Amino acid sequence: MKLSEICEKLNLECDIKQDIEIEGINTLQDANKKEISFLENPKYEKYLKDTKAAAVLIRKEDADKLPKDVIALITPEPYLKLALLTRYFVKDPWVDGGYKANESAKIDPSVRIGKGAKIGKNVIIMPNAVIGPNVEIDEGSVIYPNVTIYRDTKIGKNVTIHAGSVIGSDGFGYAHMKTGEHVKIYHLGRVVIEDDVEIGANTTVDRAVFGETKIKKGSKIDNLVQIGHNCEIGEYSILVSQVGLSGSTKLGRNVVMGGQSATAGHLEIAPFTTIAARGGVTKSIKEPGVYSGFPLMPHKTWLKLQGLLSRLLKKS
Amino acid sequence: MKLSEICEKLNLECDIKQDIEIEGINTLQDANKKEISFLENPKYEKYLKDTKAAAVLIRKEDADKLPKDVIALITPEPYLKLALLTRYFVKDPWVDGGYKANESAKIDPSVRIGKGAKIGKNVIIMPNAVIGPNVEIDEGSVIYPNVTIYRDTKIGKNVTIHAGSVIGSDGFGYAHMKTGEHVKIYHLGRVVIEDDVEIGANTTVDRAVFGETKIKKGSKIDNLVQIGHNCEIGEYSILVSQVGLSGSTKLGRNVVMGGQSATAGHLEIAPFTTIAARGGVTKSIKEPGVYSGFPLMPHKTWLKLQGLLSRLLKKS
Amino acid sequence: MKLSEICEKLNLECDIKQDIEIEGINTLQDANKKEISFLENPKYEKYLKDTKAAAVLIRKEDADKLPKDVIALITPEPYLKLALLTRYFVKDPWVDGGYKANESAKIDPSVRIGKGAKIGKNVIIMPNAVIGPNVEIDEGSVIYPNVTIYRDTKIGKNVTIHAGSVIGSDGFGYAHMKTGEHVKIYHLGRVVIEDDVEIGANTTVDRAVFGETKIKKGSKIDNLVQIGHNCEIGEYSILVSQVGLSGSTKLGRNVVMGGQSATAGHLEIAPFTTIAARGGVTKSIKEPGVYSGFPLMPHKTWLKLQGLLSRLLKKS
Repeated sequence: MKLSEICEKLNLECDIKQDIEIEGINTLQDANKKEISFLENPKYEKYLKDTKAAAVLIRKEDADKLPKDVIALITPEPYLKLALLTRYFVKDPWVDGGYKANESAKIDPSVRIGKGAKIGKNVIIMPNAVIGPNVEIDEGSVIYPNVTIYRDTKIGKNVTIHAGSVIGSDGFGYAHMKTGEHVKIYHLGRVVIEDDVEIGANTTVDRAVFGETKIKKGSKIDNLVQIGHNCEIGEYSILVSQVGLSGSTKLGRNVVMGGQSATAGHLEIAPFTTIAARGGVTKSIKEPGVYSGFPLMPHKTWLKLQGLLSRLLKKS
Repeated sequence: MKLSEICEKLNLECDIKQDIEIEGINTLQDANKKEISFLENPKYEKYLKDTKAAAVLIRKEDADKLPKDVIALITPEPYLKLALLTRYFVKDPWVDGGYKANESAKIDPSVRIGKGAKIGKNVIIMPNAVIGPNVEIDEGSVIYPNVTIYRDTKIGKNVTIHAGSVIGSDGFGYAHMKTGEHVKIYHLGRVVIEDDVEIGANTTVDRAVFGETKIKKGSKIDNLVQIGHNCEIGEYSILVSQVGLSGSTKLGRNVVMGGQSATAGHLEIAPFTTIAARGGVTKSIKEPGVYSGFPLMPHKTWLKLQGLLSRLLKKS
Repeated sequence: MKLSEICEKLNLECDIKQDIEIEGINTLQDANKKEISFLENPKYEKYLKDTKAAAVLIRKEDADKLPKDVIALITPEPYLKLALLTRYFVKDPWVDGGYKANESAKIDPSVRIGKGAKIGKNVIIMPNAVIGPNVEIDEGSVIYPNVTIYRDTKIGKNVTIHAGSVIGSDGFGYAHMKTGEHVKIYHLGRVVIEDDVEIGANTTVDRAVFGETKIKKGSKIDNLVQIGHNCEIGEYSILVSQVGLSGSTKLGRNVVMGGQSATAGHLEIAPFTTIAARGGVTKSIKEPGVYSGFPLMPHKTWLKLQGLLSRLLKKS
């Protein structure tokens, strides 16, 4: 889509000297010369000066911080405009057509597979699973019945996904209008699952806004777990049933999260950290250890707190 | 079904002067002249005097509060009798047969659609979704793979439902016998989803006992959320992943519920209220604001409480 | 598989006088003369002396506690070897082929049913459900759309399973290597659901490692509930939405678990106990009553604690 067309669709007054073809949307850090980016949250202002984006949706007062060759798309509401723009870059979630499957793959005749998908050696796909367009499933992976894998998802070797799980659904992201209405941010990224991962039943893993939600090698995820958009799960991590990870959270390797524990978004958990069952993580954890409670604290502190409360109760 | 037949099936001694055809069951407030109602909970006694029901399952001592033209079906266990009666009014959950789809709708050949369903303009229904009898899906809505929509559900325009979600399953309601056994209350109502709603993956929305479970215009619901029978979600509300709403709870417009927060049943939350992640709502909220914790309190109070506990721990 | 072959596959030096055919794996208590067992956790040492197993994976220092006719398979890591062994005894999760259905059963043509399954009188199976090999579904049971039932599951009479639920998926069990990698324990047991059970939408019930995960007669389970491997749910129990039960937990009859409540693994809850919403059970409950909170306490104590905290806050 031409940049001029974008300006027209978003109702922006743009002073474009040279019209260019825009191929996508991305973050300030990752955008290339054919992509549009945006700045809403001042936290990301530091990425302005080095961005490679063709053009950036930005407030008037921030525009002079952009490199000279980057076009400023001035708007008082960059995030809202971004949301409106995503709609034009989203691909059809379901497209029928040819796909490739290794002849050793066992695919039930009831399975539906979208255009351009690639199914590797000895892959097993059980009845009524749905594999979206352009999905890749590598050697030896096993997909149980009624699983849904959205388009562009990449699945490594020897991955197992149990029945009813959904991989690659849109993340939960909206821009909010002053009227109280919400404008959907279409999620243009994808999910990447590395080798030897196992995912339980009825678990959900959201695709990235841009880039990738990633589950690294050897991680094991139980039933009914929610993994938000743009999360990264480190190697050999363990997520017990009903865990919920908010968007853009990164777990290091061998993190263990107990049942019903959860995290806020945009935080990091150090490798080899254990979050006890029900623990609620609201800040990044830099020091590995065992943590409990909500708000989260070292497990030993949590035990002391329970002891204290118990003594206070007896006294009262 | 004739009223006399109902009395026989429920093993009630009824003094019926004029036998009538009963077409359904409903609450005291909503029942019409061809419907049966019931009174178990004294909380609803106030609706007795104005009920339009043809007949009411009621304890002997309450019977004289009924309008004169309403037949009293005397029983010491009105709720149990109600439960037993629902079975006779439930419709088949799956009936095959003709349905209507606008020629512009894209429906995958693997989709199963029940008798009498109506699929509007430009609706997309992806592989292996199941659309029950008499369901209506209006213009521009998108149903992802492996979604199940139970019979009689009504879906507005531009609604998106992600993979694996279940709309219209029976609510969790039983009458309990003295022996400890539970008698199922068949859910005779339905789910109504208004325009511009988005529902995430593997979320569940239960149908109403009678009447409607309603999700109003522009609300956005994340993955793995549970919405109980007869809930009403106000316009532009936001329910983050793993939220649980018990039955008959009403949210005003623009209510935000953080991840893993929950409510008890039969309560109301004022418009523009925010429940923080993990908040547990057990009473109605009349004053908009931000609330946290379980038991729920104003978020500022919750922060003070955490500070207090932290200080007490250091002292101890 | 011959015992000598097992030793070779597990890289164990075994002094086998008489080679035997091994037919399965089981616990020390339940293993028969054609099965292998293991001892990792000292808690189960007491079962060594009476085990009927053909051979036991065991540490050197424990081997002399075995009955004389039981072969010791000496290893410093019995649990890891067990995990590696399970792979050789697992059956194909999906096998196509003949199944038997009573002529009165209504099975949608889109339903896929595996080899050897038996479908009883008047059973209803709705579109796109998947019934694994060797599953038995008895008279009058109703399976909603997009349900997945894994192989060997046994379902009683008048059971209802709502859309999207997954019965019999692998439990969440791994042995852990010193490198931080996890070795899957293939789950060789099954799920048994007794008569008159109802299971809500998108709920997950894991199969047993060995033996059975059992849901007893008349229990009612809501949406999005997680039931771990080898759990036993007593008769007429009630599990409200988003409850999570860890593995090997046993509920007595008429236990009620409120919404989002949960249990740790390997514990027992006395009959007629109620766990309030959000309650977190970490120890066995021997005395019936109403319990709340996390850590769990009698509900009255929990109410006192909330009162105490409220008073402390006002004073501070």
